[in-house]
Amino acid sequence: MRKLTVALGDRSYPILIGEGVLDRTDAILAALKTPRVAIVTNDVVAPLYLGRLEAALRSVDVACDSVILPDGEAHKNWQTLNTIFDGLLAGHFDRSTTLIALGGGVVGDMAGFAAATYQRGIPFIQIPTTLLSQVDSSVGGKTAINHPLGKNMIGAFHQPRLVLADTSTLTTLPDRELKAGLAEVIKYGLIRDPAFFDWIETNIERLLAREPQALGEAIERSCANKARIVSEDETERGVRALLNLGHTFGHAIEAGMGFGVWLHGEAVAAGMVMAACLSNRLGWLSARQYERTVALIGRTGLPVRGPKLGAARYLELMAHDKKVDAGRLRLVLLRDIGDAEIFADLPAVEIAAAIDACCEPS
Amino acid sequence: MRKLTVALGDRSYPILIGEGVLDRTDAILAALKTPRVAIVTNDVVAPLYLGRLEAALRSVDVACDSVILPDGEAHKNWQTLNTIFDGLLAGHFDRSTTLIALGGGVVGDMAGFAAATYQRGIPFIQIPTTLLSQVDSSVGGKTAINHPLGKNMIGAFHQPRLVLADTSTLTTLPDRELKAGLAEVIKYGLIRDPAFFDWIETNIERLLAREPQALGEAIERSCANKARIVSEDETERGVRALLNLGHTFGHAIEAGMGFGVWLHGEAVAAGMVMAACLSNRLGWLSARQYERTVALIGRTGLPVRGPKLGAARYLELMAHDKKVDAGRLRLVLLRDIGDAEIFADLPAVEIAAAIDACCEPS
Ligand SMILES: NC(=O)c1ccc[n+]([C@@H]2O[C@H](COP(=O)([O-])OP(=O)(O)OC[C@H]3O[C@@H](n4cnc5c(N)ncnc54)[C@H](O)[C@@H]3O)[C@@H](O)[C@H]2O)c1
Ligand SMILES: NC(=O)c1ccc[n+]([C@@H]2O[C@H](COP(=O)([O-])OP(=O)(O)OC[C@H]3O[C@@H](n4cnc5c(N)ncnc54)[C@H](O)[C@@H]3O)[C@@H](O)[C@H]2O)c1
Ligand SMILES: [Zn+2]
Ligand SMILES: [Zn+2]
Repeated sequence: MRKLTVALGDRSYPILIGEGVLDRTDAILAALKTPRVAIVTNDVVAPLYLGRLEAALRSVDVACDSVILPDGEAHKNWQTLNTIFDGLLAGHFDRSTTLIALGGGVVGDMAGFAAATYQRGIPFIQIPTTLLSQVDSSVGGKTAINHPLGKNMIGAFHQPRLVLADTSTLTTLPDRELKAGLAEVIKYGLIRDPAFFDWIETNIERLLAREPQALGEAIERSCANKARIVSEDETERGVRALLNLGHTFGHAIEAGMGFGVWLHGEAVAAGMVMAACLSNRLGWLSARQYERTVALIGRTGLPVRGPKLGAARYLELMAHDKKVDAGRLRLVLLRDIGDAEIFADLPAVEIAAAIDACCEPS
Repeated sequence: MRKLTVALGDRSYPILIGEGVLDRTDAILAALKTPRVAIVTNDVVAPLYLGRLEAALRSVDVACDSVILPDGEAHKNWQTLNTIFDGLLAGHFDRSTTLIALGGGVVGDMAGFAAATYQRGIPFIQIPTTLLSQVDSSVGGKTAINHPLGKNMIGAFHQPRLVLADTSTLTTLPDRELKAGLAEVIKYGLIRDPAFFDWIETNIERLLAREPQALGEAIERSCANKARIVSEDETERGVRALLNLGHTFGHAIEAGMGFGVWLHGEAVAAGMVMAACLSNRLGWLSARQYERTVALIGRTGLPVRGPKLGAARYLELMAHDKKVDAGRLRLVLLRDIGDAEIFADLPAVEIAAAIDACCEPS
């Protein structure tokens, strides 16, 4: 088992990573205020892992209710969130009870937002079961639901008390979802950890083959990067924005294609290529490092080109991104592999040229 | 003009009280990040004060949109909240724009919750226009909406950047609402400020006659008490719970009668009598101080008895109150006027007896 800590003063919490950590009731018990939890999961994950978690909790006398949501990003909305509140209120959950998110990022974001706002905030635990949620969304306290006019538009910062990343749950994950998670893993290498980028280059085949040791190491090194960044900048006023590498382009792809057509990680992969390409055009990232970036993303089986929406449409969609501040578009670009920086007021023609260069031929 | 500060480190903010502070664009400008605001109000307050606020803002080049909600507690729900989000998204509001709540506690709580959760939190300003919201709900950062199964069940702590309590807006307030606000004013005297209680006893007729000087002083002394308590305990882990004097009984009255039948302040008034009565029965509050409490509430024109729901029904409703922690009912009781304390595990028969003694005869 690997263990990390997200250092946030009296809101610090541990991340446990490894095969079978789902059953670490000692860690769960230490995180509870009272022996009563509500598990939030979905109808894909419940048949796979809910019984095991419930049995573990009951064996140490923790009372558990569960709320099973419909699967999918399309349900990451207020209606579904309300079914969590309905369950909590019907069960007379009070402020001392704990919510557990068991599932991917969609379940984690919704359960987290429910915990952030139920009675103005109750404790919660993340048990992420996708690679993306284990390396990214379960750590750092960002929670949200979608609004018809924008993804993740309604949310809160609310840190979990504990994160349990059980690598054995990844055995049932569809291949496409595994690769989407690897996009975020590569992101950490690109933005601040060149040694990790080298390691991924060397070990990408082992990761794709789901070797437990390799996955454990990738998750640990990803979480270590994320934990450090979150500790330095909990509410994204500064350095945390670096985590958005590829995401402004990526969100344009997700929104432009209709949410769900491209997976988030796939869109981020093509977006990171665009960011790297723009960095290269502006004279910051060398041709060689740009090629390494594209090559690694390609070897992972992720898209290295965006869909052909037209640069104008990309720019329009990017202008509506949540990360726009005071009307100014800010982009994360690369000075080198492992060295990212935030830029505002970049020339639109250069952005458009990079997008055009990185889109599928029509 | 009177000025106070809620001291919360880098989230400290000023409260300005007085006739015409609605037009204090200097204070508003100082609180904005960018010259763009969305004003949230309702269809009763908008015809009275929205034009004046908009004109003042536009005169200093602040762009303003407005969202006008339907009036009333019945609309303090997710559907109405979504109309705020719709407006913000349609107007492409980003994280640097500010929300202004113009209205009573219902508008303030909803606009505050929208600000707490729009893009994970944007700045907001409170311009309370009822006595209750000027002395209580606009200060301290509690925000919420109701759920069909419970009042204020979904919410967040989110402090405003500025509170502008314009006493001249109270001239249009219905009499019943003014009295409901006075219940919360009396509450501050009872829980921690015996000199203020004396002052209210002396000045209650001036308050009921809406003398501006008297109202200004009552609001200032109330806000000073609330600001102190909030500074000491922002998220209600300790002393802030004293502000719930009369509220657990009061919420039972509101819920038992159907929300909206009794005004919140009216229910709190009867609830404070019940709390004082129980305090007296348990030997803590002297008979003389109990009588003074009942007399002042009575002179204000507020109810000194609760509706006859039966003590069993009261206790059942109280057991579902949000302030129940880990299954234990906690009540705020009085040792003296100006000296409140929190108690758990009180004998149910005593609580029931106090309720029965303070209900309308059948
Ligand atoms: N909060 C954050 O910081 C943050 C960061 C990144 C992404 N996100 C959010 O995360 C979401 C994406 O998360 P995701 O990629 O985990 O998607 P997801 O939660 O939709 O999971 C992908 C699919 O895998 C299924 N699944 C989950 N665990 C499984 C398992 N062990 N075996 C088999 N199937 C399993 C899910 O039911 C789903 O069908 C998005 O909504 C995104 O906005 C949030
Ligand atoms: N957040 C907190 O800390 C806190 C504290 C106490 C109460 N509250 C909440 O506050 C709400 C009650 O607030 P309220 O008593 O202000 O009720 P309210 O907002 O419903 O206002 C009462 C009525 O007066 C009208 N009104 C407002 N200003 C007016 C004016 N100047 N002239 C004429 N009419 C005016 C309103 O439209 C409404 O019809 C409840 O929802 C309660 O839960 C919150
Ligand atoms: Zn991402
Ligand atoms: Zn109140």
